Amino acid sequence: MYALAIHGGAGALPRVPFTAAREHAYRHGLMQALSAGQRLLERGGCALDAVEAAVTVLEDDPLFNAGRGAVLTADGSVELDAAIMDGCDLRAGAVAQLRHLRNPVQLARRILEDAAHVFLVGDGAERFAVEAGFALVDNGDLITPDRREQWQALEDQLTRTGAASGTQALALDQPPLGTVGAVARDHGGRLAAATSTGGTAGKRSGRIGDSPVIGAGTYADNRSCAVSTTGHGEWFLRTVQAFDIVARMRYGGYRLDAAVSEAIMRRLPDLGAAGGLIAVDHHGEIAIGHNTPIMFRASVREGEAASTAIY
Amino acid sequence: MYALAIHGGAGALPRVPFTAAREHAYRHGLMQALSAGQRLLERGGCALDAVEAAVTVLEDDPLFNAGRGAVLTADGSVELDAAIMDGCDLRAGAVAQLRHLRNPVQLARRILEDAAHVFLVGDGAERFAVEAGFALVDNGDLITPDRREQWQALEDQLTRTGAASGTQALALDQPPLGTVGAVARDHGGRLAAATSTGGTAGKRSGRIGDSPVIGAGTYADNRSCAVSTTGHGEWFLRTVQAFDIVARMRYGGYRLDAAVSEAIMRRLPDLGAAGGLIAVDHHGEIAIGHNTPIMFRASVREGEAASTAIY
Repeated sequence: MYALAIHGGAGALPRVPFTAAREHAYRHGLMQALSAGQRLLERGGCALDAVEAAVTVLEDDPLFNAGRGAVLTADGSVELDAAIMDGCDLRAGAVAQLRHLRNPVQLARRILEDAAHVFLVGDGAERFAVEAGFALVDNGDLITPDRREQWQALEDQLTRTGAASGTQALALDQPPLGTVGAVARDHGGRLAAATSTGGTAGKRSGRIGDSPVIGAGTYADNRSCAVSTTGHGEWFLRTVQAFDIVARMRYGGYRLDAAVSEAIMRRLPDLGAAGGLIAVDHHGEIAIGHNTPIMFRASVREGEAASTAIY
Repeated sequence: MYALAIHGGAGALPRVPFTAAREHAYRHGLMQALSAGQRLLERGGCALDAVEAAVTVLEDDPLFNAGRGAVLTADGSVELDAAIMDGCDLRAGAVAQLRHLRNPVQLARRILEDAAHVFLVGDGAERFAVEAGFALVDNGDLITPDRREQWQALEDQLTRTGAASGTQALALDQPPLGTVGAVARDHGGRLAAATSTGGTAGKRSGRIGDSPVIGAGTYADNRSCAVSTTGHGEWFLRTVQAFDIVARMRYGGYRLDAAVSEAIMRRLPDLGAAGGLIAVDHHGEIAIGHNTPIMFRASVREGEAASTAIY
């Protein structure tokens, strides 16, 4: 049986509650992405293609903090990170600090296939993209009016409080919302995971969170599970969160749901870390955990109805 | 009791065997670095200071592939990566793609102390360095005549074989030699790890290996052990190698030497991955493993004589 789970970020409750229309838009966006992956899995497609397809849809949706519609750096531009991993053979591709790619997850996939590297960043990653036939876009094409407005509000807040602007990292009172990710098990028992993000709103240029780091934000191993995380990136880097779930199963004999619950509901809160993750194991069991009030998420298993959830 | 181990890279035998003078120079360089860390530990200094001091000496030594004397990218410049981690509280600092810093490990340490970020790359990392008071140097100041000659030989080889030069990644027949690292346990039982590298000779600009990735090349947790790796960076990223040792101890009940031996002598060769690692656990036990013919290494424990080894 196949199984697919996706997320669109975890975080605090918004200061102004979502309108019904906005909530509907989020759920609709999640369903579009879930369907894109599910269609491939139904036809016997592989887990790797399914997670890439689902994340591509979320990157293209301006509601989520990935691809077009990502949050802006302190400098007012977009810097995108992504990773993808194949649980069959541990091949992986990761990219960070992309400023001119519309779908970072697709470049990560190309790096995975190319196999000479795992992790490429910045201009060097974009040169690889050009050689591989990807079209570069203007950074401005990745910025939506909503995100420009959010950035301006943060800048104004900094000016009012007298803090240095520009390269100064902005302190926000909530974890970044909107990182996207997908995990899948296909008919053949293959697992894959992918994650994509614009990082933290107002981040310092060059800051990398957990999303593109193999082990921290993204991991897949057919022998145990596939994981994609979202939340407090610096803490998920320190705890190597995605691989921690894999290791709990592999070395500690944990079941997937126990591994996820122990990590998300006990270990991370003990450290003061907020966030969530989605995971699927080699049996097709799905586990989703979050210690934040909100996590945009959706999942489906063969023969069962798809579901979306926010709170 | 305190314990300290360092490495200066693992790899294949050189085509022309080392002269006695060169071998002596390597051993001397290792001893200088070991002594720098040991002096701090003897006086009751903390593990974090000791690994930073040892790695700084190795970065400054042109024999090793870190800091000045690092290998060159395909473009003929130097791009440096480093990471450092404190096992007490999982604070960590990591930097990649630095072109104007003499001691990347010291910038990683500053990021660890600053605590707002974990991982900074490229120009953004260098802007942070300038704000923190670090002096930038010309990229050319990091390049030694030996490395320029090695790069020229690789370029000539590419020209002869008709491959595209410049941004083309060069295929080498041996793992990168010379990444440096240190792990320590201090009198207080605190653990720390640090790693620094110029990456692979002839690498594509923007390529990041395992060294600066928390979990892959560097990890420390007082409850289990501290690890620094060297070798086939892409494979160590895929296996999250440093944290894998921690997880085997923490979740699998492995002893340190069994965890290291299982990973280095069984798991990595099964995957076709070559390299080595140094580790120290919370009791002060040191384990060093490598599946390559060569690994430059040295270690010392309180009350015991220091030792160096190459083969």
